Amino acid sequence: MKTTVNSERNITLVMDFYELTMAYSYYKKNKQNEYAYFDMFYRNNPDKGGFVVAAGLQQLIEAIKFMHFSEGDIEYLRSLNHFDEEFLDYLRHFKFQGSIWAIPEGTPVFPYEPIVTVRAKLIEAQLIETFLLITMNHQSLIATKAHRIVQEAKGRPVMEFGSRRAQGYDGANYGARAAYIGGVSGTADVAAGKMFGIPVLGTMAHSFVQSFDSEYEAFKAYAEVYPDSCVLLVDTYDVLKSGIPNAINVAEEVLAPMGKRLSGIRIDSGDIAYLTKKARAMLDVAGLTDCKISISNSLDEYLIRSVLEQGARIDSFGVGENMITSKSAPVFGGVYKMCAMEVAGHIIPKIKISENTEKITNPGYKKVYRLIEKETNKAFADIIMFADEKIDVNKDLTIYSLLDRWKNKTLKAGSYEYFELQKPVFHNGEVVYPEYTLDEIRAYRKAQEDLLWDEIFRLEYPHQYYVDLSEKLINFKLAMLEEKRH
Amino acid sequence: MKTTVNSERNITLVMDFYELTMAYSYYKKNKQNEYAYFDMFYRNNPDKGGFVVAAGLQQLIEAIKFMHFSEGDIEYLRSLNHFDEEFLDYLRHFKFQGSIWAIPEGTPVFPYEPIVTVRAKLIEAQLIETFLLITMNHQSLIATKAHRIVQEAKGRPVMEFGSRRAQGYDGANYGARAAYIGGVSGTADVAAGKMFGIPVLGTMAHSFVQSFDSEYEAFKAYAEVYPDSCVLLVDTYDVLKSGIPNAINVAEEVLAPMGKRLSGIRIDSGDIAYLTKKARAMLDVAGLTDCKISISNSLDEYLIRSVLEQGARIDSFGVGENMITSKSAPVFGGVYKMCAMEVAGHIIPKIKISENTEKITNPGYKKVYRLIEKETNKAFADIIMFADEKIDVNKDLTIYSLLDRWKNKTLKAGSYEYFELQKPVFHNGEVVYPEYTLDEIRAYRKAQEDLLWDEIFRLEYPHQYYVDLSEKLINFKLAMLEEKRH
Repeated sequence: MKTTVNSERNITLVMDFYELTMAYSYYKKNKQNEYAYFDMFYRNNPDKGGFVVAAGLQQLIEAIKFMHFSEGDIEYLRSLNHFDEEFLDYLRHFKFQGSIWAIPEGTPVFPYEPIVTVRAKLIEAQLIETFLLITMNHQSLIATKAHRIVQEAKGRPVMEFGSRRAQGYDGANYGARAAYIGGVSGTADVAAGKMFGIPVLGTMAHSFVQSFDSEYEAFKAYAEVYPDSCVLLVDTYDVLKSGIPNAINVAEEVLAPMGKRLSGIRIDSGDIAYLTKKARAMLDVAGLTDCKISISNSLDEYLIRSVLEQGARIDSFGVGENMITSKSAPVFGGVYKMCAMEVAGHIIPKIKISENTEKITNPGYKKVYRLIEKETNKAFADIIMFADEKIDVNKDLTIYSLLDRWKNKTLKAGSYEYFELQKPVFHNGEVVYPEYTLDEIRAYRKAQEDLLWDEIFRLEYPHQYYVDLSEKLINFKLAMLEEKRH
Repeated sequence: MKTTVNSERNITLVMDFYELTMAYSYYKKNKQNEYAYFDMFYRNNPDKGGFVVAAGLQQLIEAIKFMHFSEGDIEYLRSLNHFDEEFLDYLRHFKFQGSIWAIPEGTPVFPYEPIVTVRAKLIEAQLIETFLLITMNHQSLIATKAHRIVQEAKGRPVMEFGSRRAQGYDGANYGARAAYIGGVSGTADVAAGKMFGIPVLGTMAHSFVQSFDSEYEAFKAYAEVYPDSCVLLVDTYDVLKSGIPNAINVAEEVLAPMGKRLSGIRIDSGDIAYLTKKARAMLDVAGLTDCKISISNSLDEYLIRSVLEQGARIDSFGVGENMITSKSAPVFGGVYKMCAMEVAGHIIPKIKISENTEKITNPGYKKVYRLIEKETNKAFADIIMFADEKIDVNKDLTIYSLLDRWKNKTLKAGSYEYFELQKPVFHNGEVVYPEYTLDEIRAYRKAQEDLLWDEIFRLEYPHQYYVDLSEKLINFKLAMLEEKRH
């Protein structure tokens, strides 16, 4: 159930052509055995939120594990007349043999910290760039958006209903997976149900109602086929004048004689607050107090918050295009930047300078730790350090902002704990990471969220969580910047 | 080269679960042999533009042609305990046997006209809904966005560079295809190059420059490997102080001795107008007047227009996230609505009422024609009619707005020509549509664009093209609305 289409599909060529021209240059210049380190990170939370829910790692693992250039791929590359036969033969035998560390799916992550770190031969590290970014960017984006929307539903189930507006089939399938990690209760996308074991749900479209001679006939037919899970779409003609009365009639005339109850109604248009209050009252008067009201009309986190504030009587939500495309913020700007080269066993940190200070990278092979205040059991900050640095909880720990030594904070010895955020995923080409179920990932997300202050979850102007540097790293970084300036 | 992954992948289950619950209800209620007609259309042009470039039909054809429920699909559906064995057996032998008409890819289309029309058994028409919408919505969206961007480049080549920010692998691959239909000159996505024969292009990333001891060494290495197509990325450290001088040095010291020229430079950050003017001057002074300047920094149609207005010296553009996700308008709201049922050979038009008048559908089995004024050879309007109506160019033709008889216009007899927009695609389950090459589709797009007035192509406040109804259709529609109101 859990194996995804990446094992059936060869997505190796989903790469930018420059990765191949660079790889070829490395190969021709005998740089193919030099090792490089790359970090994948992002700079801004989508929707000006407080964090991102990391997602996509399982598909990244599969993509790398099954990565290979087929004979068809080689033939196509040959046809471009850009590469010699020796290089094509190198690609024919290509297998990723590097090491990867990554923050587990479901973890709340923050700008500038490395979500994925790669150590591999230069060519290998370069050739996985594009599908690594697509995978992590897409799923992290949708998981984060789903989390925002589910949060505002305040415990009411939210279903992912957006396939038809997704950007491609993968957008629907992996989007549903990511949304489930983010907190939705299920999806309408049957493929995602099959691929990932996500609960699937759905009842009827307006066309179902239209295909019968009357709304009553349509409801009656559906109730007879699904007496135990009968949810009726009541807005094909007129919710209050036709839909609800017909639903009540069917509950009484078709379901009741079978000893069954009407499970729910769905409203897909109109003034939600008004209609749900009226509908609730009508159902209650008819004795259908257990009949659930479900809503699905261009919803997003703000509209859900608004209708609930207005006292709308809603038991569950179906959310479409605003979630599956993250419509208000449809791009997750994850980047993949070289942070070090390794020549003859010696690690040489690399930095990318930019006039735009937010684009300056953090040099070196690094680790990232989440620091927990013992008194509150809440996360205080994340700290990025060189991989060979160690934290000693019996000593004070000073953490520095990304570019300024004077912006720093000190945690007192004994007042804090920490854990490493990244886990080993590949070791010299072999997968060393377990395949977690989506429910395990969801449980992990919830546990990790409990470590964060509530203020981080605000939709607007959330608390800005610190991602800081060790003293050694900021000193090294500032020295590199100083040196490059001259 | 042209066969896409739809033939390797079974995307049949990329459907909303309600299609299956409806199908099961139809099946149990013996409605599976009734025929239905559905129209796929949209209501608003993305980005408030003047039209949409239809795209995705080829993939839709493949998806339907290869549509089947595998044993694994059946097993999964059985596990849901929603369907009986008889129905599962029906699905096991399912094959689409209906008929489809569609407007060819590359055609400029307008709100409310049927882009795809389906006549099939109720269950068949219902089960193709989701992937039909995904396919048409996604590709039409990206083709349209690409068209806007390419238009503002005013003849300069635009490359699609957005894979890493696409919403999934399909978002990258089919997005590149759609962008090519919309007018880009090529893509960075190698998979799209292989799948669709789109030209691929790419040179180097900042990491390539960083992997060498110096920028000069990196440029030198690249020039030696690609002396005939050497394009150098000049903004890793400092464009004017380092990048351009090193590029010029490599042109003189590495390429010139081989009798080669520097093909181009690429700038990926900074003030485009300023940097390109300076870069052009420096290159020209060095005698590199034939060296092209390429730009790729968060571009969209507005930024491209702006930098060109500022006199930026740019020869080509690379566009990423703003095109591949249509960031400013990431959802194409195509819908799939039942317009008629056919019982015992008799077509019964259906209408979807809504308090929101823009959501009222056009009833019946219909055809759509483009009307051309003979004097100008420009399109005057599109007209939607019942399929059994005929246009007689020797008579006056009055066309009516979608909901108001009093908003009408009359074309004089002899002053106009017409052609039918939709072509037959499937006839009783068999493909009857040719497989066009992307270059044929692009040529068709250009020819069709020539039929439209320039004012339709404005980015802002474009001319609103008429999509109107025949007299018979508006009368019928208004009568249905009147009847439903009572």
